[in-house]
Amino acid sequence: MTEQTGREQAAPEVRERIQASFDRQGLMRHLGARLIRIAPGSVHIALAARPEVTQQNGYFHAGATSAIADTAGGYAAFTLFPEGTSVLTVEYKINLLAPAEGDRIEAEGTVLRPGRTLTVCRLEVFAVRGDRRKLVAAGQQTLICVEGRPDQ
Amino acid sequence: MTEQTGREQAAPEVRERIQASFDRQGLMRHLGARLIRIAPGSVHIALAARPEVTQQNGYFHAGATSAIADTAGGYAAFTLFPEGTSVLTVEYKINLLAPAEGDRIEAEGTVLRPGRTLTVCRLEVFAVRGDRRKLVAAGQQTLICVEGRPDQ
Amino acid sequence: MTEQTGREQAAPEVRERIQASFDRQGLMRHLGARLIRIAPGSVHIALAARPEVTQQNGYFHAGATSAIADTAGGYAAFTLFPEGTSVLTVEYKINLLAPAEGDRIEAEGTVLRPGRTLTVCRLEVFAVRGDRRKLVAAGQQTLICVEGRPDQ
Amino acid sequence: MTEQTGREQAAPEVRERIQASFDRQGLMRHLGARLIRIAPGSVHIALAARPEVTQQNGYFHAGATSAIADTAGGYAAFTLFPEGTSVLTVEYKINLLAPAEGDRIEAEGTVLRPGRTLTVCRLEVFAVRGDRRKLVAAGQQTLICVEGRPDQ
Repeated sequence: MTEQTGREQAAPEVRERIQASFDRQGLMRHLGARLIRIAPGSVHIALAARPEVTQQNGYFHAGATSAIADTAGGYAAFTLFPEGTSVLTVEYKINLLAPAEGDRIEAEGTVLRPGRTLTVCRLEVFAVRGDRRKLVAAGQQTLICVEGRPDQ
Repeated sequence: MTEQTGREQAAPEVRERIQASFDRQGLMRHLGARLIRIAPGSVHIALAARPEVTQQNGYFHAGATSAIADTAGGYAAFTLFPEGTSVLTVEYKINLLAPAEGDRIEAEGTVLRPGRTLTVCRLEVFAVRGDRRKLVAAGQQTLICVEGRPDQ
Repeated sequence: MTEQTGREQAAPEVRERIQASFDRQGLMRHLGARLIRIAPGSVHIALAARPEVTQQNGYFHAGATSAIADTAGGYAAFTLFPEGTSVLTVEYKINLLAPAEGDRIEAEGTVLRPGRTLTVCRLEVFAVRGDRRKLVAAGQQTLICVEGRPDQ
Repeated sequence: MTEQTGREQAAPEVRERIQASFDRQGLMRHLGARLIRIAPGSVHIALAARPEVTQQNGYFHAGATSAIADTAGGYAAFTLFPEGTSVLTVEYKINLLAPAEGDRIEAEGTVLRPGRTLTVCRLEVFAVRGDRRKLVAAGQQTLICVEGRPDQ
């Protein structure tokens, strides 16, 4: 199988490294996004509904949906990178499948194929209202491992 | 040639319709983005540098870059749609070509192929510092015209 | 659930309609591709290794890989379309994850989100050698249902 | 500007290297594709209409359209790579804008952003009938330069 999705948490030093990096992202803080899972090859990010993240009809803006999806995929790849490296998004593609409305959205980044230089992730975003989860966006992303430049 | 890029401005009612829609986007306001051009088949959006739009290294976050690119393309398509319709992003793909740093970034959405149901746009984002403009992201986007549902 | 993947076969008239359409595709015949599964929301296509489908290093050409992936996704969507319609690919994105070498490649198209107008599919291509299957390409595709124009 | 599109031809040794590589691609020969331009950062490939490259309605198959687009982009990147390297497609995205019908199709690959490791190309495919050229597909592609492995 090709998916590198652990159910377990990542090692403490990996989680710390990623949480610290996430906390330095002005955009994630400004949007109100939170890291809710850091496992090997899998990172989840949640974003609560608020007027500051909407498009013109009151749904979550595709830009907010994409921003947390891109970030979840980036850190999912980063969980598998060696120390002393950093991660950059090369590109991604995302389909907005349905209007994103609910209490919050949750983006899941999952490594589909890890590599020494390039890593490919699957991106999924769910809108959550109460117990109900609905897939509202799906995508695919390519990331590059940058050596000799620690993320800090 | 197939590009529908007018150099002229869009008709006043089209510009008003788009400015009003843009002003209802909580995310664009929250990020500090501004509409700087509304021409037939071509819309530009600017975003000034500020800590609230950064990733962990202080560059513009790919999520912010993508958010204004997606919005520019959406409104570029919308300039060509009939009254009483609205626009939704079906999907987009974007390559982050270089770190986005500078005084501001400018996203340009350009209709590549208009259609009754689907419209395809080219997306470009430039980082601007003083006189210098550098292409930092390029993409392609598919939009759908939703009939019988005015954008308001 | 978001994936519309039946394990069962599609209804006989659906399978006939798709096999007949596939048989009219000059390219699939010319490449030597074969339909190996037609289930609701899921179609598989196989392509045997031969010099006529290679790139310069003797691997399967990305063009051949993509051609059967695009076709598998198109027919996967088509299994869910009403009679009297036809299917067109709007766009797709594909990552070539590893060199495609083996006895044959198999493309799997799976409907991720069905819709009245637009349907989104996941695309996967495996290289098969003996018992071993390796994911060599993964993508995502948008298709449109064209009404009032039967595929024939 | 960032486009590396020479109007001039590439150096003779570059053209020879690319023509020789193209001639080893079993798929291009099998489809009947021809290299019609090799300039720095820009390669064009033509494919004549014939039953062997059609989809079910008699148009050029998206798989054939994509195959020559991918190949044109790959060699466009390759014109800028140093000797002793080879080129691999990381991923591409393509929109099929209109049914591809005519005497032939022509794919144009153009380097949008060259890089030491990754290069990004724009892909365009035109359907040609007599004097008329119509854009039928547009896409974007990421390629990687593989060092220490000559293409031969």
